Amino acid sequence: MINSESIWQDISAIREKVPLVHSITNYVAMNSTANALLALGASPVMAHAENEVEDMVEIAGALVVNIGTLSDPWIRAMKLAIEKAKNKGLPIIFDPVGAGATELRNNTIYVLLPSGPPTIIRGNASEINASAASAAKTRGVDSTESSETAIESAKRLVQTYGSTVCISGEVDYILDQENIVEIHNGHPLMPKVTGLGCTATALCAAFAAVNPNPLAATAGAMAVMGIAGELASKSEYCKGPGSFQITFLDALYNLSFEDLHEKLRAKS
Amino acid sequence: MINSESIWQDISAIREKVPLVHSITNYVAMNSTANALLALGASPVMAHAENEVEDMVEIAGALVVNIGTLSDPWIRAMKLAIEKAKNKGLPIIFDPVGAGATELRNNTIYVLLPSGPPTIIRGNASEINASAASAAKTRGVDSTESSETAIESAKRLVQTYGSTVCISGEVDYILDQENIVEIHNGHPLMPKVTGLGCTATALCAAFAAVNPNPLAATAGAMAVMGIAGELASKSEYCKGPGSFQITFLDALYNLSFEDLHEKLRAKS
Amino acid sequence: MINSESIWQDISAIREKVPLVHSITNYVAMNSTANALLALGASPVMAHAENEVEDMVEIAGALVVNIGTLSDPWIRAMKLAIEKAKNKGLPIIFDPVGAGATELRNNTIYVLLPSGPPTIIRGNASEINASAASAAKTRGVDSTESSETAIESAKRLVQTYGSTVCISGEVDYILDQENIVEIHNGHPLMPKVTGLGCTATALCAAFAAVNPNPLAATAGAMAVMGIAGELASKSEYCKGPGSFQITFLDALYNLSFEDLHEKLRAKS
Repeated sequence: MINSESIWQDISAIREKVPLVHSITNYVAMNSTANALLALGASPVMAHAENEVEDMVEIAGALVVNIGTLSDPWIRAMKLAIEKAKNKGLPIIFDPVGAGATELRNNTIYVLLPSGPPTIIRGNASEINASAASAAKTRGVDSTESSETAIESAKRLVQTYGSTVCISGEVDYILDQENIVEIHNGHPLMPKVTGLGCTATALCAAFAAVNPNPLAATAGAMAVMGIAGELASKSEYCKGPGSFQITFLDALYNLSFEDLHEKLRAKS
Repeated sequence: MINSESIWQDISAIREKVPLVHSITNYVAMNSTANALLALGASPVMAHAENEVEDMVEIAGALVVNIGTLSDPWIRAMKLAIEKAKNKGLPIIFDPVGAGATELRNNTIYVLLPSGPPTIIRGNASEINASAASAAKTRGVDSTESSETAIESAKRLVQTYGSTVCISGEVDYILDQENIVEIHNGHPLMPKVTGLGCTATALCAAFAAVNPNPLAATAGAMAVMGIAGELASKSEYCKGPGSFQITFLDALYNLSFEDLHEKLRAKS
Repeated sequence: MINSESIWQDISAIREKVPLVHSITNYVAMNSTANALLALGASPVMAHAENEVEDMVEIAGALVVNIGTLSDPWIRAMKLAIEKAKNKGLPIIFDPVGAGATELRNNTIYVLLPSGPPTIIRGNASEINASAASAAKTRGVDSTESSETAIESAKRLVQTYGSTVCISGEVDYILDQENIVEIHNGHPLMPKVTGLGCTATALCAAFAAVNPNPLAATAGAMAVMGIAGELASKSEYCKGPGSFQITFLDALYNLSFEDLHEKLRAKS
């Protein structure tokens, strides 16, 4: 079901249709996620004001909500945007950055998750654990952050919200009600660049804008992230996390079906 | 009138006088426009608070107002900064990012344009069309976005506000009451990097800070953008939109009179 | 006391302990400082809301307060974060970006400095001069900005607040109650990249999170900045300020004891 042909079909659709991805995201990752969306073939737009987000959702192909740098006016705008996207049937991609770190993040997750709910939730193991705990409130944040615990948390989120959930890490796990897909692509330099998790979330939105199956969209986005990372690390110009940022964007832009077909390591 | 000698004179003046460009701009492009201003030889400063912008205009050589990521407090600060710049006789460079996309953007343009009016307005064809429609309010957004339509819109803006207007694209058109200048420089990778339009606007401000003729300042900035883009694309290190960002800044920094003279394709 | 062995010990401690550096910093430098902290081996987190900063300080190893793009809600959050960090005994690193340029910046410095006071203050000569003048209020901003004047200003800040003060420039001067350390590393391209001063401040925080001696922590951070800059400039891929940003991050990530030992030019 998830193979290089199906993913390539989505990439081709993104390049052809150039979906507008409305991102309410954090200050740190705005520039790099916009560039990644452009490199993939999509069109980024950022808008965060309460009196603008609904109009922007109106013309967008997908909505990203990323809680990396929160404040109350942004939270109110996120809620409005999510509700509008829900009414329009637009894919909503949620990134619980730093879940578990503060009450504000936990409460925001607690408020925003039911108001969609999101089509796709993507985070690392501790963010997925904390999001599931937020969802259940009384259970508190799990003390262990192993992949197994995160898979249980992901299942709870799938169960409660009907969302597709992606736990990103060395192996990415993507779950919906019936399936678990694993993506084994990626490179150790990736966590040394800020905002690549946010970039993964943005790419999920681009894929979801052209593919109505959230599991396939998320798997495609995560595979493309990992494969672009592998290609980037092999560039003769990649000497560390600085140059990796650059070779990563180039790899995303230059990605061919041959690269994808040769490198994809998906399991479902 | 616009030739490599006149543009080089402006570049030399920027490098010598290091004008302070006060930018009230969007979150996405802040870092890249600051770096482009530094590479050109100017000095960037960002300040957006209602209780700070007038003081900053006081010490600046030019003001950039870019509506890429709006909210009400920023709009109020933009208005204050524009009025202060007007009183000081400071060049005001306006970038109507995403004009036409939302009511908030259209209303902001409608409010801000008359309060200067701007010395220079720079946008792509649809932004110039939407700005002209905003200005006229009752006419609505034009349905077609061809260059010809944008030229009519630009003329309307020139007529209404006395601004110099630049429609950027494959060919850049720069208009004032009496002239149309065309710049035929640039490279197809440029729209694949986020914020290069915002960068063009910032460079217009640096040129306007040293050249009292807005038409010449805008033509110089657009020519330098396009030529730096061409040089960047020819670097052996340019492999896509990631590395293009880097080779572009290097090209801007290393730009010589010979490059400018050899590559300039201006028509007036 | 400050030598390559002691600095290497701090770098090794940062890489091993991965301290969380909570940064309330400006929009322009968020992405680049986050990437520099990651390249050094620390973990960056950005949070700026009044109802979040105290919780974030609770789990951080150091706090950065950088006034580069101010507004009232951010100032209130900075004050709360500083007071919380003080109660926790957490190192507070203060960067008075653009001090002297506006009343808002001067007043903010005047309010924030005593509320810590900061463990470390880092700025260029005019920022240190203006901060000292802000501290004394009635004296006004000194008219000359020579290094000597800045050293007198730095001494006044050390005296008033007990902070360690760093004047960064071609030579970095680092002062506490009893010592002056000079770092003679660095490269002329560094001021051509936006936010490298902010990056220096962020690295001071990472060092202070693992070394309880603020003078040694600051000297280590400034030495590492300068040496990474020298290494970056010597890369075959460095052709200007664009590529310098990239080779700088790579140099920071790849820094070895041998590089440090060979290149360190400290005087105390």
